[in-house]
Amino acid sequence: MAKIEEFRQIIEDQIRMLDRPVRPEGLYDPVKYVLSLGGKRLRPALCLTSAALFGDYSAAVLPAIGLEVFHNFTLLHDDIMDQSSVRRNQPTVHEKWDNNTAILSGDVMLIKAYELMAKSPVGVLPQVLEVFNKTATEVCEGQQFDMDFEKTTDVTEEGYLDMIRLKTAVLIGASLKIGGILGGGSLRDSSLLYKFGQDIGMAFQLQDDWLDVYGSQEAFGKRIGNDILTNKKTFLLITALNRLENDSKKELLSWLERKEYLAEDKIAAVTHLFDEAEVSDLTRKKRDEFFFRALENLEKLGGNKDIKNELQTFAHDLMARAR
Amino acid sequence: MAKIEEFRQIIEDQIRMLDRPVRPEGLYDPVKYVLSLGGKRLRPALCLTSAALFGDYSAAVLPAIGLEVFHNFTLLHDDIMDQSSVRRNQPTVHEKWDNNTAILSGDVMLIKAYELMAKSPVGVLPQVLEVFNKTATEVCEGQQFDMDFEKTTDVTEEGYLDMIRLKTAVLIGASLKIGGILGGGSLRDSSLLYKFGQDIGMAFQLQDDWLDVYGSQEAFGKRIGNDILTNKKTFLLITALNRLENDSKKELLSWLERKEYLAEDKIAAVTHLFDEAEVSDLTRKKRDEFFFRALENLEKLGGNKDIKNELQTFAHDLMARAR
Repeated sequence: MAKIEEFRQIIEDQIRMLDRPVRPEGLYDPVKYVLSLGGKRLRPALCLTSAALFGDYSAAVLPAIGLEVFHNFTLLHDDIMDQSSVRRNQPTVHEKWDNNTAILSGDVMLIKAYELMAKSPVGVLPQVLEVFNKTATEVCEGQQFDMDFEKTTDVTEEGYLDMIRLKTAVLIGASLKIGGILGGGSLRDSSLLYKFGQDIGMAFQLQDDWLDVYGSQEAFGKRIGNDILTNKKTFLLITALNRLENDSKKELLSWLERKEYLAEDKIAAVTHLFDEAEVSDLTRKKRDEFFFRALENLEKLGGNKDIKNELQTFAHDLMARAR
Repeated sequence: MAKIEEFRQIIEDQIRMLDRPVRPEGLYDPVKYVLSLGGKRLRPALCLTSAALFGDYSAAVLPAIGLEVFHNFTLLHDDIMDQSSVRRNQPTVHEKWDNNTAILSGDVMLIKAYELMAKSPVGVLPQVLEVFNKTATEVCEGQQFDMDFEKTTDVTEEGYLDMIRLKTAVLIGASLKIGGILGGGSLRDSSLLYKFGQDIGMAFQLQDDWLDVYGSQEAFGKRIGNDILTNKKTFLLITALNRLENDSKKELLSWLERKEYLAEDKIAAVTHLFDEAEVSDLTRKKRDEFFFRALENLEKLGGNKDIKNELQTFAHDLMARAR
């Protein structure tokens, strides 16, 4: 069994142990619910894998769970802010309970995440907390930029890339870096792990944006064109808005404002405009920039060769599918 | 100048230094707003005072600010949950901005609180974090119980006391205990400080409940009878509900359900029922239990005599007025 699969088992076992305390139920039932919905457990799996690069990963187990709890806290609060009613094919917490429940249960999850981080060995605790504090702050900043961008059609490529870096990529980088620190990696190694993770996170988000329009339903696992229908600010839309001129730009803006249309018409028309602006190639080019830089940094990394290979396989797998 | 006043100055200076970073404004402007609204800075002042009991308080400065940031985070999120539109005579964040802003700005404040806690010297960092994690969790539990209680008329005295302990008193206890740890106090001393603070917090909350009905407008600084008008579950109401029988109990319950009334009529009628159930004396008795136990524990404490006296004065002052 690949190491990363072994880690997923450890993670599921540990997550089940968070089922205590139980009272007040109004606070803790939603926490259990969210954590039981599954998901790929990407961040703790990466954390344990990068710790294992240097030998013993045991010190990383609880902080790795902390990263997963933190990630789920962000989903819980983001879902309130975005008024999303479904997450992992189940009703979101604010749908199943209410907004107040989702706010408070999210808060206690953020505290729990810190509690698990604080289980790091004291010798590296300040270092781990420094990475985690910085990252957690950045994730909030990313969410704020994301919400700000929803209100405007005037977003630069640089601004968009910085937003997805903050909202998504830094936590992948931090998961690997924290694992590296807890596994006993050098400063250089944990810094390379961070860069690898951050760039993979960027490549993954760009791939996700691209798949929404140019993927096959099968590979994507989500309905094609959904981002187009919801006017989601993706790399594709931002690029098209920045590159199209005159009538084409007007047409794209009018589709963003139109309230009544057939879904297939909007998807076809916007895709056509994307094609005109060559966003498919530009997105893949940008994605590959991040992806190859990630692999370069992985190459420079020390540690166990087999585990490094697992990280490489993992990076390739992630590009082949979506979240 | 009394030490505690000196500390308040240090606290205000440090809080102004939190005015960075500035972008995204949507995230950080509300944080600055909340922290600029003032308040007594009770928790950091107590933290620094208890650190000073044992000599050098400098290690406690940043964690003390963390306690204030945490407290303000709880106010921000509680105000959303309670739909309060005014705090410290100013519009609340969700009123001035919106709910999403209040959620996310609160989140980043909780992270900031941890960042400041993490500035504790590494030798005591795990100990400080343990107290803080436990306390932060309990404050969320207290808020949940408080919200649960709002939906029922069936709350025991024990349940109520446990709720205010979690929601309010433990953070006062923790502020003193964390100060004690950071100042270099013994385990015994920091444990006594915790008990002192928790009991003072309980006495203070009971006094606040009592003043709403039996205080003078002048001493209270808030409108008399406001808790009665909003059906707030206070120690007085809980006690009356548990002690009244037959017609008196029915009358009290009917006042809780009535939608149309003159404010002065409801205040007069409910106060009359409180008198019948002897809740004034019972509340003062309970308050004094906590207050005198607090002073007893303060007595047993080691450290600088003058600073101990300041803590004692502070406890008496707190009883003389309200939040």
